Amino acid sequence: MKTTYRNALCGELNTEFVGQTVKLCGWTDTRRNLGGVLFIDLRDRSGKVQLVVNEEVSANAFAEAEKVRNEYVLCIEGEVVNRDAENVNPKMATGEIEVMVKSLTILDTADTPPIYVEDDDKSNEAVRLKYRYLDLRKPKNQKMLKTRAQVASIARNFLNDEGFLEIETPILGKPTPEGARDFLVPSRVQKGKFFGLPQSPQLFKQILMISGVDRYYQVAKCFRDEDLRQDRQPEFTQIDMEMSFITKDDILPIMENMIAKIFREVRGIELETPFIRMTYQEAMDRFGSDKPDTRFGMELTNISDIVENSEFKVFSGAVKKGGSVRAINAKDAQGRLSKKTIKNLEKFAAIYKAKGLAWIDVSDGEMKSPILKFISEEEKNAIFERMDAEPGDMIFIVADTDEIVCTALGQLRLELAKKLEFDLSGKFNFLWVIDFPLLEYDAEAGRYVAKHHPFTAPLDKDLPLLETDPSQVHADAYDMVVNGVELGGGSIRIHNQDVQEKMFKALGFTMEDAWKQFGFLLEALKYGTPPHGGLAFGLDRLIMMLMDIDNIRDVIAFPKTQNHSCLMTDAPAEAQLDQLIDLGISIDEIL
Amino acid sequence: MKTTYRNALCGELNTEFVGQTVKLCGWTDTRRNLGGVLFIDLRDRSGKVQLVVNEEVSANAFAEAEKVRNEYVLCIEGEVVNRDAENVNPKMATGEIEVMVKSLTILDTADTPPIYVEDDDKSNEAVRLKYRYLDLRKPKNQKMLKTRAQVASIARNFLNDEGFLEIETPILGKPTPEGARDFLVPSRVQKGKFFGLPQSPQLFKQILMISGVDRYYQVAKCFRDEDLRQDRQPEFTQIDMEMSFITKDDILPIMENMIAKIFREVRGIELETPFIRMTYQEAMDRFGSDKPDTRFGMELTNISDIVENSEFKVFSGAVKKGGSVRAINAKDAQGRLSKKTIKNLEKFAAIYKAKGLAWIDVSDGEMKSPILKFISEEEKNAIFERMDAEPGDMIFIVADTDEIVCTALGQLRLELAKKLEFDLSGKFNFLWVIDFPLLEYDAEAGRYVAKHHPFTAPLDKDLPLLETDPSQVHADAYDMVVNGVELGGGSIRIHNQDVQEKMFKALGFTMEDAWKQFGFLLEALKYGTPPHGGLAFGLDRLIMMLMDIDNIRDVIAFPKTQNHSCLMTDAPAEAQLDQLIDLGISIDEIL
Repeated sequence: MKTTYRNALCGELNTEFVGQTVKLCGWTDTRRNLGGVLFIDLRDRSGKVQLVVNEEVSANAFAEAEKVRNEYVLCIEGEVVNRDAENVNPKMATGEIEVMVKSLTILDTADTPPIYVEDDDKSNEAVRLKYRYLDLRKPKNQKMLKTRAQVASIARNFLNDEGFLEIETPILGKPTPEGARDFLVPSRVQKGKFFGLPQSPQLFKQILMISGVDRYYQVAKCFRDEDLRQDRQPEFTQIDMEMSFITKDDILPIMENMIAKIFREVRGIELETPFIRMTYQEAMDRFGSDKPDTRFGMELTNISDIVENSEFKVFSGAVKKGGSVRAINAKDAQGRLSKKTIKNLEKFAAIYKAKGLAWIDVSDGEMKSPILKFISEEEKNAIFERMDAEPGDMIFIVADTDEIVCTALGQLRLELAKKLEFDLSGKFNFLWVIDFPLLEYDAEAGRYVAKHHPFTAPLDKDLPLLETDPSQVHADAYDMVVNGVELGGGSIRIHNQDVQEKMFKALGFTMEDAWKQFGFLLEALKYGTPPHGGLAFGLDRLIMMLMDIDNIRDVIAFPKTQNHSCLMTDAPAEAQLDQLIDLGISIDEIL
Repeated sequence: MKTTYRNALCGELNTEFVGQTVKLCGWTDTRRNLGGVLFIDLRDRSGKVQLVVNEEVSANAFAEAEKVRNEYVLCIEGEVVNRDAENVNPKMATGEIEVMVKSLTILDTADTPPIYVEDDDKSNEAVRLKYRYLDLRKPKNQKMLKTRAQVASIARNFLNDEGFLEIETPILGKPTPEGARDFLVPSRVQKGKFFGLPQSPQLFKQILMISGVDRYYQVAKCFRDEDLRQDRQPEFTQIDMEMSFITKDDILPIMENMIAKIFREVRGIELETPFIRMTYQEAMDRFGSDKPDTRFGMELTNISDIVENSEFKVFSGAVKKGGSVRAINAKDAQGRLSKKTIKNLEKFAAIYKAKGLAWIDVSDGEMKSPILKFISEEEKNAIFERMDAEPGDMIFIVADTDEIVCTALGQLRLELAKKLEFDLSGKFNFLWVIDFPLLEYDAEAGRYVAKHHPFTAPLDKDLPLLETDPSQVHADAYDMVVNGVELGGGSIRIHNQDVQEKMFKALGFTMEDAWKQFGFLLEALKYGTPPHGGLAFGLDRLIMMLMDIDNIRDVIAFPKTQNHSCLMTDAPAEAQLDQLIDLGISIDEIL
């Protein structure tokens, strides 16, 4: 990093440099004038170092330094010296030394910055994003940019070593009517037609397998025109890959090794491989989620058999209607959840469609369970035994359809972990969730839809069911889950035109529709397709996980807000009329 | 690359494998039935190997193999054996061995492919692009994909080692009214507004320098909605970078080393560094081009002084009007250019606005120069001496404004090199062209426009001229040129708001206009900007150069045609009405 302007970096100086003359460049982080001596903390990408500008050492440098304000860009020359023992700053990486300045040049001045360039700046997010270039100067954001680049680099080199080729697929693609909303790009050359920005390179990567590429990857930009939630951006990045002549047992270990390598090199954490594989059904039964957080227990337990004949109709009725009654045991929670908190938990469960939330405090403490009057002593004891209940525990019960029971209790379990302040820090519990249902019934559309996408292969053993009982078919799909977050997912793909056509039939597509939408893939499947499969990781989420960051906007250099704005550049913006005329489109008047 | 399906790759087998049982997968490249023995060339990404399926060895495998047709996907198990001496195929990398098949499974069948999957396939390009997945199976295209991935990887690792961070900049950017045409993306959330796809990450990379990133790079997708020429695509890829606290003398050697590393690792060619640096003026004077092909001489020579008082008014008149008369000497060309060719060269020069093309055959051979009757013997001899003329040479002369003379002769020089069939193969003559004019006068607009872009810094020494005589200001810009092709270019940027404002004034912008278009950059320049500069290489062109490929569509996995179509997917396509309603736009009726 030596250049004409400098021969060292601020943050890399230490006692080994003592006695050397260094040339440094950077930004003025702080500045104190002690009368005849100026102290400046100079900051560059590598960190900070303290400069001492003494009028007696260099009157010129001192005169210049007196003009310096925060964020001025400086180039200085000076000697590295040890600090006096009492001035050593153990909080600063370069705190044992300082630089006695001999000459100082102001390369650029700076207005007073509208935000503080420091990690604990409390400016509101809109201001930070407008002045993103100042926000990015903060050490934590510099670290984020470095980590992001590092992770992409580790992934690339790992995949290169495994024989994957990075191949660019088009950004100007074909619009897809299904799935999430596409961003459209009007074509000027073919007026009235549109490109679609890719939601993922799914079809292209399958085409690459048909092309004989064998192993493909791409750190790929993907686009979805959705209303933004906290963890979504209109453009996001995937580490996307696909392999030929493989089964799930080939691809999962490679992916585990890649993720393990990233955690080792970035966090110094050794992940245990192979990751546990858990079926979708087991994940739902035990954790009420297809992305279970396994850092703690509090698992779901089915108590339907105990209460199926209960006088308490809420329980027995649910079982009779084909649903179930399940419970979780919040160990030692009694006394740590107020009545008000419990009321709120009932409301919380209602979000997930649970019509009620029953609870029992095991020790019959102060908080009398309202359901005790409805269930028999025998039932209560059987529940306690099944739930391993001990004095101090609290048991939460939901009765409804299986889906509602599992989802509501699964979410309640996560909520309780927060309320009870489980210490989960530093734990990374990885697992694979496999054997998802291939199809989901969409009551609104009155037909099945693909749970992943229409190219996902059924498990071989379930293939005969595809035409007879599609709801029972499992997909050869897999999601990598860590701490309750889906980090990536994929599947083995259909590589046979017959199976692909059966899949489209199960989805209620006429073959005409299927050909209209995916004709080029169906055509390609005619000419010799290898068995293949792949997956994609969300790079943004991976960085969030690695850096313990909650907000996706904090792991992207230039993020967009919830209404798709870039506050720094003011995109999107109005187009000029002649641009629209060129494109042959008009803006509708708002009625 | 071992998987459940295979334990070896076809193209990697050799005599060291003899005696081993291998499992292979791939596509049927060719198939011959010699009655009881079937020979199949099996192809995977690594290459081909000959399979022998003998009815006597395995009746099952033979029965299955009889069904096999070209491009069927197979999985086989067999033993690697030496070929008989007379059957060794020295043209095939695996030609010393073959595989005696014990079992054979057809993984997928294939219809008869509409193109030949071989390098010398002569199918027309439209068919090849429609069936791009078959086209990509050809060894030459597999090699292209590998080379492209390799080059990107070498560049990335080189830049990582030099301290550059790869940072993603947005694809959904702000539309820019200036320069080439943007692709626009209508915003659904903010109806009536548009994103613009980036023509380059120029503003973002400067913002990153202001953010303290110090060294940035990106293998970046860029977009230009232009009518396509042979060497342009609506989306293309740049290796884009920017550095802080540097001068040209810091950045050029790093870039030379990167390119040298790529040529070394991909082509085994050692480039001589540092590259020559040639000013724009010298390039124009000597080669009539700002991207001179220096693989051969035939340089332009100014003969204005010789003919300034000539009776031949075409010559003397041009000089008197402030233009010039210049010549090139096509050594030993006499007899190798027919009269018809010379007529065509005159027409060729006219394309570049030359009103005429004079020529002299030095030995007074059969082709009598029509201009000899107009110029004196003394003038002719002076020209011959100046041009180092020898018998057999032919001299071509153009008289006009400097710009027309240089451009026409520069192009003529390239055309003559083709006509005279200069052997230029295997030569890579790299150089930097520097010190470009900062501004160009746009007669149509009646004002100056930036030759590079409005953020290019003037040379320090020319700074005072920016307000007094802008046409004389040189830019601190640099282009890397090889064999007459611009591989990349960039500049030191303006890092000071005052200079940036002067630049906008020279370009005839009101500050209001400038702020409207580039306000966020001007705002950012207020808060402490380091001296910085960068450049970008065209990855597509670099691959073309490395692989001696003429057509840009042959170095892109999924290219578009001249009317912006992807023939494989049929993009662009019609959008659904509800998508357009969501976006608040309508398609204009064509009048």
